[in-house]
Amino acid sequence: MKKKSQLKYEQILAETVNLINEKDVAMVSTNQVAKKVGISQSNIYIYFKNRDDLISQVFTTEVNKMSAFVIERIETRPTDNLKAKFELTFTVLFQYALKFPKSMTVIQKILQSYAYTHMQDQSAAYSKANGMLVASLDAGIATGLLKPIDRTLLQNIIFSTIKLHADNLHRGRYTERDVPFDQVAAMIWDAISA
Amino acid sequence: MKKKSQLKYEQILAETVNLINEKDVAMVSTNQVAKKVGISQSNIYIYFKNRDDLISQVFTTEVNKMSAFVIERIETRPTDNLKAKFELTFTVLFQYALKFPKSMTVIQKILQSYAYTHMQDQSAAYSKANGMLVASLDAGIATGLLKPIDRTLLQNIIFSTIKLHADNLHRGRYTERDVPFDQVAAMIWDAISA
Repeated sequence: MKKKSQLKYEQILAETVNLINEKDVAMVSTNQVAKKVGISQSNIYIYFKNRDDLISQVFTTEVNKMSAFVIERIETRPTDNLKAKFELTFTVLFQYALKFPKSMTVIQKILQSYAYTHMQDQSAAYSKANGMLVASLDAGIATGLLKPIDRTLLQNIIFSTIKLHADNLHRGRYTERDVPFDQVAAMIWDAISA
Repeated sequence: MKKKSQLKYEQILAETVNLINEKDVAMVSTNQVAKKVGISQSNIYIYFKNRDDLISQVFTTEVNKMSAFVIERIETRPTDNLKAKFELTFTVLFQYALKFPKSMTVIQKILQSYAYTHMQDQSAAYSKANGMLVASLDAGIATGLLKPIDRTLLQNIIFSTIKLHADNLHRGRYTERDVPFDQVAAMIWDAISA
């Protein structure tokens, strides 16, 4: 891809993120995205095979961004203490949600969308990023640190609580002084720990 | 409304529930609903002002169904013990999710949809049904039984966990013997109790 094309590619991704953030995934058309970028609809298809491919690449890009953010901050503070590692992971996910509110919203909306759940090739990036958390949760269950319960139930509490807390702060429902993250992390920990 | 019309009205609501359950809210058009019912699209507008009105009435109907189910089962077993009341509420919500899996999915999808979040008149039925749980949560916080934290965080853990557990059972991820509801209720209780 030429330099100019790389810029357009990124603009298309960014405008798709903006539109999904504002509306429902199913409401976002390649035509709307093209208008926002200021190109013709047919130009979208120079970069993406079809609408599903665009949604899929937006998803992969955002998941990779989130994973890189988390890994970078966890690897600089290595620990053998699994509980400390979970608490650091919660904090870093919260920092990401605060710093990139659109990103986490778009990841969640795409995960729940008909388009994504019916795609034949689901994101390898997501499987990889999710795989790391899954491994930590399985280790936590195996060592008796976490409740011996299906891990999707643990994952849901972690992600949905952190996301809702960040959204509540973002919408001004309360401030970080009213509800410090420590209290939120303690609630998650009480739910998942054995 | 004539008897025949009442039947059509209920068929329109039922087919809209089916379509929202299968797809995304934004993908469901009055045209599709009319086709499923076997009437012309213009006939939909005899019963509903517009698409938003249809979505809104589906939502109110399902919320009222869920509320009636919960209230009926809680009022027959009155208790002054707030903890016992919460545990009974969790169990009854789970029974509802198992018995009417489409209903809880449709309620959740509409709550998260652009159409609903941007409606001017949001459901009074939801405010009323939600109001009862809110009152119990506030009483639980005031008496020191529950964590003194914003109640939306408590509500999210209750609903999203029960819904996910019912979905996991429905999709065959595990059986009720693998993950008994007692374990799920204990996880919720550990999260929300002080």
